Amino acid sequence: MAALDGIVVLDLGQIYNGPYATFLMAMAGARVIKIEPPGGESLRGRGEEDPASYAFFALNQGKESVTLNLKSDEGKALFRDMVKKADVVLENFGPDAMERLGLSATSLMAINPCLIYAAGSGYGREGEHRDYLAMDVTVQAMAGVMSVTGLDGMPPLKAGPAVCDFFGGVHLYGAIVTKLFERERTGEGGYVDLAMQDATVPTLSTYIGAYYRLGQTLPPRRGNTHPAGSVAPFNVYPATDGFIAIICTRDGHWESLARLMGRDELLEREDLKTRAQRGANAEEVDAVVNAWSSQLSKQELLELLQREGIPSAIVRNVEEILEDSHLHGRGMLHPGTHSVFGDVILPNSPINVATGNAIKPTPAPALGAHNEQVLTDLLGLDAEAVKRLASDGVIGGS
Amino acid sequence: MAALDGIVVLDLGQIYNGPYATFLMAMAGARVIKIEPPGGESLRGRGEEDPASYAFFALNQGKESVTLNLKSDEGKALFRDMVKKADVVLENFGPDAMERLGLSATSLMAINPCLIYAAGSGYGREGEHRDYLAMDVTVQAMAGVMSVTGLDGMPPLKAGPAVCDFFGGVHLYGAIVTKLFERERTGEGGYVDLAMQDATVPTLSTYIGAYYRLGQTLPPRRGNTHPAGSVAPFNVYPATDGFIAIICTRDGHWESLARLMGRDELLEREDLKTRAQRGANAEEVDAVVNAWSSQLSKQELLELLQREGIPSAIVRNVEEILEDSHLHGRGMLHPGTHSVFGDVILPNSPINVATGNAIKPTPAPALGAHNEQVLTDLLGLDAEAVKRLASDGVIGGS
Repeated sequence: MAALDGIVVLDLGQIYNGPYATFLMAMAGARVIKIEPPGGESLRGRGEEDPASYAFFALNQGKESVTLNLKSDEGKALFRDMVKKADVVLENFGPDAMERLGLSATSLMAINPCLIYAAGSGYGREGEHRDYLAMDVTVQAMAGVMSVTGLDGMPPLKAGPAVCDFFGGVHLYGAIVTKLFERERTGEGGYVDLAMQDATVPTLSTYIGAYYRLGQTLPPRRGNTHPAGSVAPFNVYPATDGFIAIICTRDGHWESLARLMGRDELLEREDLKTRAQRGANAEEVDAVVNAWSSQLSKQELLELLQREGIPSAIVRNVEEILEDSHLHGRGMLHPGTHSVFGDVILPNSPINVATGNAIKPTPAPALGAHNEQVLTDLLGLDAEAVKRLASDGVIGGS
Repeated sequence: MAALDGIVVLDLGQIYNGPYATFLMAMAGARVIKIEPPGGESLRGRGEEDPASYAFFALNQGKESVTLNLKSDEGKALFRDMVKKADVVLENFGPDAMERLGLSATSLMAINPCLIYAAGSGYGREGEHRDYLAMDVTVQAMAGVMSVTGLDGMPPLKAGPAVCDFFGGVHLYGAIVTKLFERERTGEGGYVDLAMQDATVPTLSTYIGAYYRLGQTLPPRRGNTHPAGSVAPFNVYPATDGFIAIICTRDGHWESLARLMGRDELLEREDLKTRAQRGANAEEVDAVVNAWSSQLSKQELLELLQREGIPSAIVRNVEEILEDSHLHGRGMLHPGTHSVFGDVILPNSPINVATGNAIKPTPAPALGAHNEQVLTDLLGLDAEAVKRLASDGVIGGS
């Protein structure tokens, strides 16, 4: 039996934020019924040829798909019937979208007092910025990620990955499971209002600390060096065939590195004794490491550094990660077949891997693939009724 | 009653990864007992003057502190006694550190079969890379974050915030609460092995999709533009006094923007009709937006853009975020007093805010502040016994 066995989730999620939360739920054993408009949710709607179709394929593994026209009265009625049988409703539409459909959180929780209604959004459903249009990049701007990413004297940069979407999604998962745990004891459902911006703010702690340490002055953007400038070596250094990150947080790391580089004389330098001193002289320290690293391959560097216990890592690209036998061995990556791209590698749920859950991700469902199954086994309709709903345009797809 | 009321956590976490998971637990109502060596955990050990002391102060709110020398036999015995009363043990030490102390997960779960033993690490406790030294920056390198952050033709860059530490921490929270939920039904505890690298891999979905779409070819780093190059405008644009992010994912956004810029003639251009076409002509599109944006202030731009429903956001710095009345109003930020930095602003738990939990974060504890309280009320020792343990060096601190 999996952890969330028996939990039924009605998933109105779209793009990354909502779907990642429900992907984690599906992989933990919940029955996740993805409810899509007849044309498919936004990400699916971009088409199979679009690069985004891979993300759709990855984040909707393990789910069922039902198409339902929530703008029709009969579609709304079917949805309300489903809510009576559900444990969780999740959506990450714009604010008030559900109210406009006549399906507000309050009204759904009134139908089913055990229901957990989970809303994902950029800035939350309450507060003065609730109506700001949000997607990963705008939240990266608003939440400060960009202001601390990039190089001094150059424009701010976004973090490459959609970190705010995913921070929002995994916190949303955490909030829902917290509520499920609470419900086991109280029998009551509740409302979850998870904001991507809220989920990102704690990650700024290093920079906030640097800001206060400097007497409420903003530190510059520092590229790959230490956020508060208080550690060196702490950087990405060139190899003959790529880059390697090397971090000496302890004096012992620095002593091992100096010897490894054949630069024992640096250990005599009074101005490089402590981490703080090396941080203050980072430019010189980095130049020394650079001169050494740029003569060796990244693999040679890694082996030497790991042998000496010096924190280090090759800067790997997406292809190297997809081929990583460690990640495949842990079950974090597995093969699949995409309709256009062919053989692809897909992620598992990190929580599934962590808890040793044996659930294998099934492929993301075709649009409406589970219309008949869900309407018959969840709502007790017969095949005839399902056919009629399809021909009346209440449900679309297969 | 809070969600995790009555749950007792023995927190051996250090730096960000473990402590963030237990911060979320404390804010959800768990009793989190932070067990530190007599000198304090690594982050506290850097001292109150260090910028990192702010992060310590932020991530250890709501916890109790007990100092315990786990290298002494009596310290180990006390810890085992505490394990009998605990629901969760969490640690993010190096692999085998607990085994070397004679406190392996297996041995602790044998003492208490209901125990959830949660291990946080860079690469997991199993697998060929388990012994790689891990901290946020090395995992950013290994997990691909750096390879997709930065500008084409320049070295890879790290995301400014410690995204891998925090992705690890919040997934670890999710995994623990998933296990707690399961335990309510089965009565059994279990083992959690959460890897920061695993937690980061799903965030690469956009780039993996771009890689497959290009016939298994790596896309270049793209700065602030769309990861797959398939959307424009999608960038950070200069204002007279800073920067603003503008994203036109829908044709309607572009139409509104063109009119707002007084460039209606662009809507007649056959090569800019679709999102894909604008993505392919991103350089020209960006130049047009640049020419317009650079004449207005960021606040003027934001107001114009939001009024037209065009996704946009000011690139805000740490100071602007700490002063954000929306975040204060939601309860995500609150004031506190740091021993060296004075008045500071601290984060709440995003999950606490989302679930409307009324728990107020109490300040991070002084080292060993709860020695007597925990040893008396959890283990039933008397004040005399606690005094003796202190003078024998089994517990340190106050």
